[in-house]
Amino acid sequence: MTLHNDNTTALAQALLHPASVALYGASDDVSKMGGRPVQFLKRSGFAGRIYPINPKRAEIQGLRAWPSLQSLPEVPDQVFVLTPTDTVIPAVRECAAVGVKVVTVLASGFSESGTEGVQREEELRQIARETGIRILGPSSLGVVNPRTGLVLTANAAFAEPDIPPGKVFVASHSGSMIGALVSRGKARGVGFAGLVSVGSEVDLNVGEICSATLDDPAIEGYLLFLESMRHGPELRAFARAAHRAGKPVIAYKLGRSAAAAEMATTHTGAIAGEDDIADAFFKDLGIARVGVLDALLETFPLAKRIPLESAPKRVGVVTTTGGGAAMAVDQLGIRGVVVEPASAATLHRLQQAGLPCTPGRVLDMTLAGTKYETMKGTLDILLTAPEFDLVLAVVGSSARFQPQLAVKPIVECAGQPKPLAAMLVPDAPEALAALTAAGVPCFRTPEACGDAIAAVLARRQPGQEPAPLPRQADTTTLNEAQAYGILDQIGVPHASAAVRRFDAVATQPLPFAFPVVAKVCSADIPHKTEVGGVVLNIRNEQELANAIATLRKNLADKAPQASCEEVLVQPMQKGLGEVLVGYRVDPEAGPIVMLAAGGIWAEVAKDRSIRLAPVTVEAAQEMITEVNALKPLTGLRGKAKGDLDALARAVSALSQLALKPELRIVEAEVNPLLILPEGQGVTAVDALIFQA
Amino acid sequence: MTLHNDNTTALAQALLHPASVALYGASDDVSKMGGRPVQFLKRSGFAGRIYPINPKRAEIQGLRAWPSLQSLPEVPDQVFVLTPTDTVIPAVRECAAVGVKVVTVLASGFSESGTEGVQREEELRQIARETGIRILGPSSLGVVNPRTGLVLTANAAFAEPDIPPGKVFVASHSGSMIGALVSRGKARGVGFAGLVSVGSEVDLNVGEICSATLDDPAIEGYLLFLESMRHGPELRAFARAAHRAGKPVIAYKLGRSAAAAEMATTHTGAIAGEDDIADAFFKDLGIARVGVLDALLETFPLAKRIPLESAPKRVGVVTTTGGGAAMAVDQLGIRGVVVEPASAATLHRLQQAGLPCTPGRVLDMTLAGTKYETMKGTLDILLTAPEFDLVLAVVGSSARFQPQLAVKPIVECAGQPKPLAAMLVPDAPEALAALTAAGVPCFRTPEACGDAIAAVLARRQPGQEPAPLPRQADTTTLNEAQAYGILDQIGVPHASAAVRRFDAVATQPLPFAFPVVAKVCSADIPHKTEVGGVVLNIRNEQELANAIATLRKNLADKAPQASCEEVLVQPMQKGLGEVLVGYRVDPEAGPIVMLAAGGIWAEVAKDRSIRLAPVTVEAAQEMITEVNALKPLTGLRGKAKGDLDALARAVSALSQLALKPELRIVEAEVNPLLILPEGQGVTAVDALIFQA
Repeated sequence: MTLHNDNTTALAQALLHPASVALYGASDDVSKMGGRPVQFLKRSGFAGRIYPINPKRAEIQGLRAWPSLQSLPEVPDQVFVLTPTDTVIPAVRECAAVGVKVVTVLASGFSESGTEGVQREEELRQIARETGIRILGPSSLGVVNPRTGLVLTANAAFAEPDIPPGKVFVASHSGSMIGALVSRGKARGVGFAGLVSVGSEVDLNVGEICSATLDDPAIEGYLLFLESMRHGPELRAFARAAHRAGKPVIAYKLGRSAAAAEMATTHTGAIAGEDDIADAFFKDLGIARVGVLDALLETFPLAKRIPLESAPKRVGVVTTTGGGAAMAVDQLGIRGVVVEPASAATLHRLQQAGLPCTPGRVLDMTLAGTKYETMKGTLDILLTAPEFDLVLAVVGSSARFQPQLAVKPIVECAGQPKPLAAMLVPDAPEALAALTAAGVPCFRTPEACGDAIAAVLARRQPGQEPAPLPRQADTTTLNEAQAYGILDQIGVPHASAAVRRFDAVATQPLPFAFPVVAKVCSADIPHKTEVGGVVLNIRNEQELANAIATLRKNLADKAPQASCEEVLVQPMQKGLGEVLVGYRVDPEAGPIVMLAAGGIWAEVAKDRSIRLAPVTVEAAQEMITEVNALKPLTGLRGKAKGDLDALARAVSALSQLALKPELRIVEAEVNPLLILPEGQGVTAVDALIFQA
Repeated sequence: MTLHNDNTTALAQALLHPASVALYGASDDVSKMGGRPVQFLKRSGFAGRIYPINPKRAEIQGLRAWPSLQSLPEVPDQVFVLTPTDTVIPAVRECAAVGVKVVTVLASGFSESGTEGVQREEELRQIARETGIRILGPSSLGVVNPRTGLVLTANAAFAEPDIPPGKVFVASHSGSMIGALVSRGKARGVGFAGLVSVGSEVDLNVGEICSATLDDPAIEGYLLFLESMRHGPELRAFARAAHRAGKPVIAYKLGRSAAAAEMATTHTGAIAGEDDIADAFFKDLGIARVGVLDALLETFPLAKRIPLESAPKRVGVVTTTGGGAAMAVDQLGIRGVVVEPASAATLHRLQQAGLPCTPGRVLDMTLAGTKYETMKGTLDILLTAPEFDLVLAVVGSSARFQPQLAVKPIVECAGQPKPLAAMLVPDAPEALAALTAAGVPCFRTPEACGDAIAAVLARRQPGQEPAPLPRQADTTTLNEAQAYGILDQIGVPHASAAVRRFDAVATQPLPFAFPVVAKVCSADIPHKTEVGGVVLNIRNEQELANAIATLRKNLADKAPQASCEEVLVQPMQKGLGEVLVGYRVDPEAGPIVMLAAGGIWAEVAKDRSIRLAPVTVEAAQEMITEVNALKPLTGLRGKAKGDLDALARAVSALSQLALKPELRIVEAEVNPLLILPEGQGVTAVDALIFQA
């Protein structure tokens, strides 16, 4: 996680702005993989020096060929290894030996192909570690910088002629998706400041590559195409740095459905994290995660116009087509963004100016007819109306036939302080290109429009950075009493508990009244009910003695190996409701905190809210609103209100584990946490904690 | 609902194939609304006779102008009234007087603009009723038939030059959306067999218009753009007739979100039905409802290839790009369509043929490279593999640069019996057009691909047609005892119930044991708990007497006006779970049946399943799987299983009200219906029924 130091600058330079590149295994035959990079570099007018390496030829495609890297007159900044899988290791060693900074490996056949591949991959990693050479790939389709004509790729998909230069940098797990983005961007008037196919990330990964480019002033934002969550820590560091630099990050991540998540892992060998954890990761790091492919290309200008810091997100809509606007409102609505109507004061201003002011949620000019003056006048008023943070103009068929009527005024308003976006209802590529060129966020479909706006508004400002924490590896389980000790340290309330040796229960009186519950207390038995380790509703001394006997018998029967000499006794308690509150150091996302419906509901309907830890009490309150099962506790239909403020405090308190590396907690699950009536707090009645 | 008789043929003829059209209020000035239709008709080469009507001019745009409809040498088949709102009524009267078949009204300002407008609209309706003239509009942007050059519209949006003729007919609530569909269709290689802007449907509505065109052999399918559910009965009749005719119907309906639903109603004066009712309506009538705008244009060829009758819907995927296929799998997965892996037998066949056969959910040719022979060979095997009902080919960048590699074999396989669809990952308009021309269902984005396939697979074959039923109007409420009488007639089990006059409770012994529940029994008190009209857990005679006293006191206090002399006594019963089962004759959707989570959950999370009534027991079983709250009763996590078969029978039985007009039931709600353990049935413990 080295940011903004000389190494990263050198890396960015070698990767995107090499003064010289060598093509290891270059071919004279342009129909072959090995022949393409030379062809592409020449065609795109790359200004740097090109060294084809091929011991069998004197010349390749009109360029002098060189027998080896050693024979070159200089050390090339970047080498693209085009040779087959089994020659890659020696080639990379040769690169390292002459002092090459970055080597890109095209071949596949590494960790995705069995034991031998895994070993090859480990060898690559070792070379990088030992020599300091940086490796891009394997399975990388290469690097493109349209600003300098660096089209360093062997793949036709990636070699779109005349890739338009632009403001965004693309990093993609999938090489073929880069071709798709370039062609779709071109059709849509969107250009690029650089594109990298990261391949299987044995050394350089998405986060590190993007971080290295943050100082490049021509790069104003980032588009990430991710197959799965991997190399989370570097991605996290990059997202925070990008936020500080004011450069928005837009991400499309596969795996919203279980089937696709499984595919991504089969494909890359990564572990599929749950998608809602990834979702929390993106939002909490200020990354706009889109779900519609077109939106990956269309969201950047909007993200750039809407600072993460501006809290309320009220959208106003003006349109020349009622049906078109309704589509946009619908697509926003299903993603939780509610379009606000104009205020009475704004309607008054419109009326004074002789402009159409229709009642309802959007200002609909359909009946007034589409005129330049009407659109311009209305936009001028809406863009100074205090009730809106963003204005969306939905333009009908005039966008195709008469852009001077409704598109021109939008372009003219692009410079106003309040952000303005546009959605075009007909097919109108020229108007889209004009709007894009003017920097106006604009959308080709209602789905991309709804998705982009919702994704931008859903971003949260990155919270407090967690401490360097232990990751899940070999861990120790704490017994329930020890777990309560941790809860005490971090301020999560729990039920009183008396721990007794089995044989001392009869002689040591309890510090609380009956009825009580008795539970076996042992780090060896994390799931007590499974071994019959819990007896509820014990009403007196005699029942307690019976319960102890039962527990001991069950232990002997069902957990004979477990070391367990103690029982934990608690008063029986009932809440208005119960939840699960969990904390975990996720291998990719880092520390997370989760609030979930308790009991069987958690399994029946995925009813939970996740955030990166730590969270403030305010953030925890927002989490509470996201769990359906907690709605009855807000006083719905005259039901008693639960102490949701205390719940928010408990969630926030548990999440503070992310700031307490000295406690060495990698996972903590409070389940159930009882929610008592308003003013009476919450109380944990069981907890399971794993310590590193 | 007149279908396929002479009237509808005449209507379709006059609407889409008029031999002559008159333009009422035509202008010589092409920049004016009134000037456009003549210009458009001439430009598009309309072969029929054109009569501009304008008493002030002798000639309009080179055509002879006529002073009135009476002065014409013939009665025109269709008249387009272009004059302002306040002249519409006399113009339509004049049309009716000379015997015009169809008059289209452009002007707005009817029911959407206050009392005066409502009155104008009623007048239009009256003219239609009295004279038999059919009215399209008002607020209709007109009618287009690209096959005959009939571009009868005043709106530039609609007058796209060279609208490509095609196989689908479009009917739209929104006039401006027609322009959008035409331009997007043109860009996408999709043509049209006719387009109608239905306006506010005072007379002709979407269902009736589409029904009238069903005999047109050039029309092979229908695209509907709907702002809201209106004129449901005609839409229903059309959908059934279209299904019989084998012509697929694709619908995009606004109002998935509450905000947009509200907009549609403000705009048109319609009542917003709940969106899940509309959704059930579409699916149960075999209409493919899409949610992505592009999919409205892209779904027809797929719907045509997949007959509604073919039950299992197993999708296989082959791809030249792993990332691209994962996007498609993801978009299918989030819509509930799971991609199936190839069987061992199919993998074996692929292997035998020397074709790449990758493990996992999709056949990924990325590593093998994109070659014609590979794709063709693989498709030939997949299209004869018994485990797939549909094969989706996801093509990467070769679709843009080298369509001969992977697109050509798809085109060549278009004629095979098993349906084959394609999604193109890069921007590749030419390949899309070639696939479309070959009749291959193909998609520009992963979202449209997932949406279209899911929409087509979600269609259900239309079930039994309900009887003509009373609609909700003035209804009588039945008391609980009477309601049980209805449940007895239709076979929905309910708890035993003894009805007693208050003063006879002490003298008439109960036919069942204590504990019991006592409830006031009166049609005047549909919501008993609100007036303290229920006493639970009565354990003996004395408590029963007390309960009666309590009930009488509560009645006197909280419902003094209610006529209530009786109490209904039932044994106390407990189920493993409880649900709400409802039946209703919806004003638009017709009879529907609903199964919902009981208790507070119904309000916290919309957890319900809806179908058009009647439903079979099998359909009711499917409904049960759609209600999350019922999952614990399937035996999840060792919980006791509920009698879900009995539940399915009860749901089906209640839905049979749709076939029993003699019972005059407009709404019946069983809430709660207790679900007993497996084998023990279900039992209604309350019911509220409204009779016409």
